[in-house]
Amino acid sequence: MTHTLVASATKEVVIGFDQPFRVIGERINPTGRKRLAAEMVEGNFETVKKDALEQMGAGADILDVNAGVTAVDPNQTEPPLLVETLKIVQDLVDLPLSIDSSVTSAIKAGLEVANGRPLVNSVTGEEEKLEAILPLVKQYDVPVVAISNDETGISMDPDVRFAVAKKIVERAADHGIPAHDIVVDPLVMPIGALGDAGRQVFTLVRRLRDELGVNTTCGLSNISFGLPHRHGINAAFIPMVIASGMTSAIMNPCRPGEMEAVRGANVLNGADADCANWIRNYRDHVAPQGAMPATLGGAQDVAIKPAGNGGRRRGGRAARRGSA
Amino acid sequence: MTHTLVASATKEVVIGFDQPFRVIGERINPTGRKRLAAEMVEGNFETVKKDALEQMGAGADILDVNAGVTAVDPNQTEPPLLVETLKIVQDLVDLPLSIDSSVTSAIKAGLEVANGRPLVNSVTGEEEKLEAILPLVKQYDVPVVAISNDETGISMDPDVRFAVAKKIVERAADHGIPAHDIVVDPLVMPIGALGDAGRQVFTLVRRLRDELGVNTTCGLSNISFGLPHRHGINAAFIPMVIASGMTSAIMNPCRPGEMEAVRGANVLNGADADCANWIRNYRDHVAPQGAMPATLGGAQDVAIKPAGNGGRRRGGRAARRGSA
Repeated sequence: MTHTLVASATKEVVIGFDQPFRVIGERINPTGRKRLAAEMVEGNFETVKKDALEQMGAGADILDVNAGVTAVDPNQTEPPLLVETLKIVQDLVDLPLSIDSSVTSAIKAGLEVANGRPLVNSVTGEEEKLEAILPLVKQYDVPVVAISNDETGISMDPDVRFAVAKKIVERAADHGIPAHDIVVDPLVMPIGALGDAGRQVFTLVRRLRDELGVNTTCGLSNISFGLPHRHGINAAFIPMVIASGMTSAIMNPCRPGEMEAVRGANVLNGADADCANWIRNYRDHVAPQGAMPATLGGAQDVAIKPAGNGGRRRGGRAARRGSA
Repeated sequence: MTHTLVASATKEVVIGFDQPFRVIGERINPTGRKRLAAEMVEGNFETVKKDALEQMGAGADILDVNAGVTAVDPNQTEPPLLVETLKIVQDLVDLPLSIDSSVTSAIKAGLEVANGRPLVNSVTGEEEKLEAILPLVKQYDVPVVAISNDETGISMDPDVRFAVAKKIVERAADHGIPAHDIVVDPLVMPIGALGDAGRQVFTLVRRLRDELGVNTTCGLSNISFGLPHRHGINAAFIPMVIASGMTSAIMNPCRPGEMEAVRGANVLNGADADCANWIRNYRDHVAPQGAMPATLGGAQDVAIKPAGNGGRRRGGRAARRGSA
């Protein structure tokens, strides 16, 4: 069984086929958040702290930490800023962290200070990247996210993306890094631009699991980019990728609809024993105002002990079942 | 490609692997609805009409019609009541119907009056049932729901349920009924009582599709029986069974969360060309009050043209993608 161990100083989280789907909180990231970037550059980490606490409270398993503020020379500015951000976050919450940077020196600096066993985010199939990141991954004995693009960019052909992932896994093995420490991101395209984007990912995830035996992750919200009510698309995508075998995602845990989809899929995937986590989260659930017109009410949300014949009966079928 | 054609006088609906997931509206059914049963016995079909119109408006593809009111002698009372109900519904809406009864004479009477090509719901693996229903299915050239239980009841072993389904398909072939006119219900158990219920169905649906080449359906809400906030479980279950290959379900289309899951999964499964149905339904979507605290807002629901690099960027990765 493939188990990827990620840990803080005090807490271990296992990513695996037999585990609950792991939510890697994406919010501590100044990319596209100008105000956050400005705050971080000024040494103001109040939003970072708030995002850390909120994501933990919302149910994140791991927190991604990115300090990629736009800078003239990221090689100079990003390592110290990432180090400071990691320290602040790990002093505040006990969740394992993901060290997210495209700057190798920043990843190395982050690995020096991060407690436990952080996840490195990320390596790609690019030669330069492989040779820069894999030795660090080996040296610090940490797991790594492997993104399935290379020098030629992101292929629209899922078979090529699979081949890139396979190359990274093989190259990692050459460095003495086992497959269970590689978490492959098969790359999720926007379904609004590429109608086959969903099926591509479902097939890829299944192949990555069956043929390479690796855990998987993705930047989840990419799938819904450009569509109206994109959180509805995200919430449908989550159970589908989980059914296909995906074991984690980099996503916003502060979206209740998405987290409900994660928790529901965990129940249905047999990864929430006795539905305990579901019941703890939703035992007092009240449908939000306006979510359903009262006149259209269906089955009631009452918690009663399940009976062997299962739920609301349908006429003819109920009669047959009753006699069974 | 397996196509099950269901039709009203004027409208055809195809159930198939390459089609949108088909929603069979379950509400016209007096089982467990005492007031509706009393109304129908009295010849009052106002609720039936309301349910027909509401389900059509909510997006049902097919309407299940059941007239199984509790009676001393269903063989006497159910055929005329089912006939009357079918006539009223098909005069009111143009959706194809599903004739739902455990009483063979009622199904026969229903087949006499139903327009187009109705779905018969249902046959089981019981000998008596097979020999009563299959000749009618052949005679009227209609598709039929095949429930995977037999004289021994509902097996908890999914392999046994698969074997029962296989027996029904083979027996149907003996009667000259092709596999594409069999829609197998693998039977969904409540996940609250049986932690493996979800995975059982996912595996069964995939086998039914790959090995028997048949379409599938289920009584969807059974999965969540007894759990709090069961609509959340249903909404996660729908994308998972669709990802596993299920092609229809008997469910309540008047639940917005469940229908959103169906529509989202259709998009992701490549069964909503250009996301047209999704966009039509959700272009003006406003999150319901209380669904998400404003302080926890993530990505915005703005409809913009998808870009090749896909959605919200994550720092290091965005930089790599930008250069690709």
